[in-house]
Amino acid sequence: MPRHPDISPVIAAMPRGVFSSVAHRIAGLRGEVYPLHIGDTWLEPPEGCRLEDLRTEQHPGIHRYGRPRGRPELIAAIAARHGVSEDRVLVSTGATGALGAALGALLDPGDEVLVLAPFWPLIRGIVTSQRGVPVEVPYYVDPPGHRGTPLGERSVEERLAPWLTTRTVAIYLNSPNNPSGVVLPAAELAELAAFARRHGLWLLSDEVYEQLSWTGPPRSIREFAPERTFSACSFSKAWAMAGNRVGYLLGPEVPEIVEEVRKVAMHGWYAAPNGPQVAAVRVLSGDCDGWLQAARAHYREAALRAAELLGMPAPDGGTFLLVDVSHRIDERGMQGFLEDCIDRRLLVAPGASCGQAYADTVRVCFTSAPLSVVEEGLGVLAELLR
Amino acid sequence: MPRHPDISPVIAAMPRGVFSSVAHRIAGLRGEVYPLHIGDTWLEPPEGCRLEDLRTEQHPGIHRYGRPRGRPELIAAIAARHGVSEDRVLVSTGATGALGAALGALLDPGDEVLVLAPFWPLIRGIVTSQRGVPVEVPYYVDPPGHRGTPLGERSVEERLAPWLTTRTVAIYLNSPNNPSGVVLPAAELAELAAFARRHGLWLLSDEVYEQLSWTGPPRSIREFAPERTFSACSFSKAWAMAGNRVGYLLGPEVPEIVEEVRKVAMHGWYAAPNGPQVAAVRVLSGDCDGWLQAARAHYREAALRAAELLGMPAPDGGTFLLVDVSHRIDERGMQGFLEDCIDRRLLVAPGASCGQAYADTVRVCFTSAPLSVVEEGLGVLAELLR
Repeated sequence: MPRHPDISPVIAAMPRGVFSSVAHRIAGLRGEVYPLHIGDTWLEPPEGCRLEDLRTEQHPGIHRYGRPRGRPELIAAIAARHGVSEDRVLVSTGATGALGAALGALLDPGDEVLVLAPFWPLIRGIVTSQRGVPVEVPYYVDPPGHRGTPLGERSVEERLAPWLTTRTVAIYLNSPNNPSGVVLPAAELAELAAFARRHGLWLLSDEVYEQLSWTGPPRSIREFAPERTFSACSFSKAWAMAGNRVGYLLGPEVPEIVEEVRKVAMHGWYAAPNGPQVAAVRVLSGDCDGWLQAARAHYREAALRAAELLGMPAPDGGTFLLVDVSHRIDERGMQGFLEDCIDRRLLVAPGASCGQAYADTVRVCFTSAPLSVVEEGLGVLAELLR
Repeated sequence: MPRHPDISPVIAAMPRGVFSSVAHRIAGLRGEVYPLHIGDTWLEPPEGCRLEDLRTEQHPGIHRYGRPRGRPELIAAIAARHGVSEDRVLVSTGATGALGAALGALLDPGDEVLVLAPFWPLIRGIVTSQRGVPVEVPYYVDPPGHRGTPLGERSVEERLAPWLTTRTVAIYLNSPNNPSGVVLPAAELAELAAFARRHGLWLLSDEVYEQLSWTGPPRSIREFAPERTFSACSFSKAWAMAGNRVGYLLGPEVPEIVEEVRKVAMHGWYAAPNGPQVAAVRVLSGDCDGWLQAARAHYREAALRAAELLGMPAPDGGTFLLVDVSHRIDERGMQGFLEDCIDRRLLVAPGASCGQAYADTVRVCFTSAPLSVVEEGLGVLAELLR
């Protein structure tokens, strides 16, 4: 029991952040940098869907409390888009809020979640802060130095079963994947769904890059396991609205379960911001589809160019490449490599934030700045890797 | 360990909401109602501080991710306003996000929080969803039917000590108080601070109505126990921006502790919405002080008028009155009284949502609609109570 001045040891043991070891060095930089470390999109949202377009006169009460589940017209638009009933939709403070609330509803303290790696850096801490235990399972791509049968040649059962315990409650997957760029094919999603069903597990499907797939529309595991899948979606990536903090959860076909998640959500952040939900309604109206097509074409070009510059296969989807830098790690370790990058004004994310097994990689985002900036930054990285 | 289709029993046991027993009846209402059940302010925010005033051209990147701790200029403005160092400020998704994150950092599962009652309806669920145990302590006003020495004549030690256990970690207080209208005087705050110090407890001070005090500027317990007080503040109430979801936490004088809370916050909702933080900066600039004075005068008039209509003492602060309706409860219980209200288009909050001891009261908000609407609604209530 923590008493002043102590806090919960679980929280005290969490790392402060991905960049804390180099924060001082980054803070010392003056002028322009190559900001490939963050996961963001650099475009401004389409005109008509910006905060300045949300007129109070047109939307009286837009600054007041909205319903905790979300604005009714947004819930209706989301339900229509995905062909689900409205009672399966919870509008959330980004996908982060959706995943945290879903895990909060599912987990008892100490329950385990299989987190398929490499993973989005925040998911590990989301599980921990909900008092669950994240179990890192190398999955999408072989970690540097991987020995034996490549992961991709093993069955889902072979890959996941060794990590199951009596405390395992759920699997977290993310396709298109941050950071590997993998988009899981239908057959594999079906296999994952069957595995979850066999072992009585929930599925948390992070689909925030669903509209940024470069190999055709991605499938969702929700199709294969609708009775147990929570999908987390967002307006942040496709629509360049990460600061608006609006995303949503699609609940499984379990009666009233979204109401259970809503309890946790309401007591964690009450509701997604009200005005920005109107912007979300607008982008779903179809009026901005041209903008989205142009943005996608731009990001796709960046994906291809990034892969070319680094001599890697192009990603299937998403906005990242995970780069094996093990051959450039010297006695200073990853810290030294990150410092070499920073000294050249290049910011990248250490791979350990995406899973311990990937500690000898770095993650770069190719949509966080205009293509010319990304190209220059990746040129620096290519040089460091040569 | 919950497995599909079960969820955490702690969450499953939480009530779905304050109004679930009468939701169907409310949904059946057509046309205008007297919405005195919600805690909101009905004015639109000052001009210049609305979403439509946040021009992308003026604030490039306003729709992109902001820093998890908050926009630097907002942190600076908050720190200056309260005379604290910037490292004690965490911008949050409203006070709800601030309190949830602070409790998440402090509590281990099963730890207890003394929740001074009557209380803001959400706080009980915030503690529960962080896996703590809320312990309701009648405090600000005597519950209906209270026997023995009035609470106000007992010392803090007498009032609180009986509820302490080895699991008690913190005290939650709220002044100006929702729903009783009490503003705790300096001497009592000092006594509470001394009690917390004597027993090694943290203090969570909910100060969202700090600018809506009708008896002079309220004091904060932070002054008396700066080493152990987390203050939760908001732009929602004074500035009519509840839908913007921007508030903040002021951490105690414990080095780096806000960084610990930030871990939980970042993994619960990542950051407060970015654009709305710019609106918050603007209201703190001083340009809107005239608007605030006018709003305060309007709400104060509503407070006095509400008390007069119900024949009660005027509240010291806040936007509510807690009304003893025990003499009007018949064999149908509170449910019947709420139905009688709804049948007259009057919506009020059942007192049990503010603490079990206050089950024979109802809470009314006098700022959730224009004064004429509030007056009519309170007229209906006065008639029902006659």
